[in-house]
Amino acid sequence: MPTVALDLLGGDGAPEIVADAVALLLSGESPGEPVPELIVVGPPELARDLMTVRGVAHERVEVVAAGRAVGMDEDPLGVIRAHEDVSVTVAARLVARGRADAWVSVGHTGAAVAAAVLELGRLAGMSRPALAVVVPALAGPVVLLDVGAAPDATPDLLRQFAVAGCAYAESLGICDPGVGLLTIGGEAGKGDRLRRSGHELLEEVLPPRGVRYVGPVEGHDVALGRRAQVVVTDGFTGNVLLKGLEGAVQWSAARIGQAYPDASPAWQVVVDTATSDFAGGMLLGVDGVTVVGHGAGTAEEIGACVRLAARAATRSLVTRAAGALAGWSA
Amino acid sequence: MPTVALDLLGGDGAPEIVADAVALLLSGESPGEPVPELIVVGPPELARDLMTVRGVAHERVEVVAAGRAVGMDEDPLGVIRAHEDVSVTVAARLVARGRADAWVSVGHTGAAVAAAVLELGRLAGMSRPALAVVVPALAGPVVLLDVGAAPDATPDLLRQFAVAGCAYAESLGICDPGVGLLTIGGEAGKGDRLRRSGHELLEEVLPPRGVRYVGPVEGHDVALGRRAQVVVTDGFTGNVLLKGLEGAVQWSAARIGQAYPDASPAWQVVVDTATSDFAGGMLLGVDGVTVVGHGAGTAEEIGACVRLAARAATRSLVTRAAGALAGWSA
Repeated sequence: MPTVALDLLGGDGAPEIVADAVALLLSGESPGEPVPELIVVGPPELARDLMTVRGVAHERVEVVAAGRAVGMDEDPLGVIRAHEDVSVTVAARLVARGRADAWVSVGHTGAAVAAAVLELGRLAGMSRPALAVVVPALAGPVVLLDVGAAPDATPDLLRQFAVAGCAYAESLGICDPGVGLLTIGGEAGKGDRLRRSGHELLEEVLPPRGVRYVGPVEGHDVALGRRAQVVVTDGFTGNVLLKGLEGAVQWSAARIGQAYPDASPAWQVVVDTATSDFAGGMLLGVDGVTVVGHGAGTAEEIGACVRLAARAATRSLVTRAAGALAGWSA
Repeated sequence: MPTVALDLLGGDGAPEIVADAVALLLSGESPGEPVPELIVVGPPELARDLMTVRGVAHERVEVVAAGRAVGMDEDPLGVIRAHEDVSVTVAARLVARGRADAWVSVGHTGAAVAAAVLELGRLAGMSRPALAVVVPALAGPVVLLDVGAAPDATPDLLRQFAVAGCAYAESLGICDPGVGLLTIGGEAGKGDRLRRSGHELLEEVLPPRGVRYVGPVEGHDVALGRRAQVVVTDGFTGNVLLKGLEGAVQWSAARIGQAYPDASPAWQVVVDTATSDFAGGMLLGVDGVTVVGHGAGTAEEIGACVRLAARAATRSLVTRAAGALAGWSA
C-alpha cells in the first residue's frame, strides 16, 4: 500500500477540513479501494488534537512536524526560501527521501509547485511542470493540461505537455490517447500566435514519435470528449476553461433546480460529480507524485486527492512520464 | 421598425436554415416583440424559391442580390477583395448606405468581421472590433468580450473592450456595469503577462473616467455573474471559454438525462436557453450594428440574432459606443 503525505495546513478550510478528510479516509467508506498509509504534515500537537476530536487513533496516522503554510497573498518562493518548516517543503521532502510515495496539498498552488520543483526536481525533458486534471467528459475521461502551473507557454512547452499528458492518460488506463491542441475553430491555422506555431510543431514532431496528434480542438471538446483524450494548452487558458466548466455546471444545476424543483437531487449529483472529479490536479514533470487540490475543496474532495495520489504511485506514473520524456531530451 | 439585412448564404445549414429563420420571424410567433423589416441578401431566384416553398409572400421580404459566400476554408479578405458580390459585403454595405439599420450573418466569422470593417469602418478609439456575447449568468446577464474577433490582445485593447462592452451593457439596460478582467486567481498580480499589465492599466485609467473596474475575475464568474457584468479578455481565451461553457451545459444536461431519464424536458430547456442566448455575437467597434451568429445555429437561433440586431439598432448601440470611445481617442 502506498504512503501519502498530506499537507495539514494548506487550503481555505485548513487544518480542520484536512483533518476531516483524514478521518473520512480512515473510516473506510469506500470499500473495494484500499486506504493508503497516511502521513500528516503539520504542527504535531495540533495534528494530534484534531485526530483525537475526530476519534482517529493516533497509531493510525503518522505525523511529521511542519510549522507553517504559505498564505494565499504571500510570495511562495520567498516563504519557502526563508523558512525551513513550511508544510509543502516538508511534505515534498518526504517523497524525495523515499519515506512517502506521493504527497498532496490543497493550499497555495504556486507554493506546491515550487516545493515540488525544489525538493523533487524536474524530470529531464520537462522545462516547466504542468498541472493536469481529468475531466469526466461524456465520451470518457479527458486529461486537460496545463491548468495553472505555467501561465505563459511556448510551442515546445505544449509539446512537452502532450508527451507528459499521454503518459498520465496511459497510467489511467486510456489506451493510445489522441492529443488535441486547444484552440478556436476546428481548422488548422486558426487561433493566436502560440497556437499557430504550436500546431505546426505538434504536427511535425509528435506522429513520428508515436504520439497520435489529432489536431486542433475547441472548448466544448473538453467536456464532450469525442475528439481527443489529452488536450494541451497554456496554464492561463486551461485554468480559465476549467473554472468556466465548473461555473457552467453550477449554472446548469441551478437553472434546472429553478425550473424543476423536484429534480434537486439530480442536479446535486451533477455538481458533486463534476467538482470532485476536478478537485485534484496532478503535477506532471516532477520526480515524485504530487497532487495539488482545489483550495476550497471539501473533505470528500481532499480524500479524492489522496486516493488519486495513491493510485498514481501504484501505477508508476513518474516512471512512465520520465520514460516518455527521456525519449525527447536524449 | 428597424430594417435588418440577413446574409442568406452564411452558416452550416445555409441557405435553407436561414430561409427557415425568415419564415419563423414572419410567422410572428413572438407576440409582444414587433418583427423587424427584413432584407434577404443572396441570389434573388434562390431566395424567392426558398420563400415560396415556405409560404412566405414575396412582398413581405425584400431581396438584394449577392452571388456567393466565403467558405469556411477560404481566406476571407482574399475572397472579399476578389469578388464584388460576396453576401457579407453586400449586407454590410446596405447598413453603410442607410438602407438597413443592422445586418446579420451566421457564416464565416472572419469574413463578417472583415466585411464590417471594410464597409462600415471602425469607430474612432477602437483599434480592433470585438465580438461580445451576453451570457445569461445566474446573477443576471454578463457581457463577455472578445470571443473571437481579436485572438491576440494588448493591455490597451482590453481597455477598449471594457469601454465598448460597458456601452453595450448599458444599451441592454444594465446600469453602472462593473468591469472584470478575466484571469486566474482572484488576487491582482496573477495570470500571464498580458493580464498583469492589463490589470495595472485598467486599474489606473478606468475609474478616473467613470468606468467601474472591479478587478480580476475567474472563469466561473462568467457563468455565476456575481462579480462583474462586463468581462474582458482576448478573443482566444474568450472563444475557448464560451465554447467550454456550451460544452459544459451540454455535459450537465446529458448527465442529468442519464441519471434521471424522466427529467429530459428539463435538461432540454437548459440546453436551449444556453445555446440560444450564446447564438448571437455583437460586433462592437464598427460603425453599424453587426451581429455574427453561430455557424451551426438553428432557425430559432438565427431568428434570435435578427431580433438582437433590431434591438441594438433601436437602442442606438452604435451611437452609445461611439460616444463612449470618443472620450478616449480625443
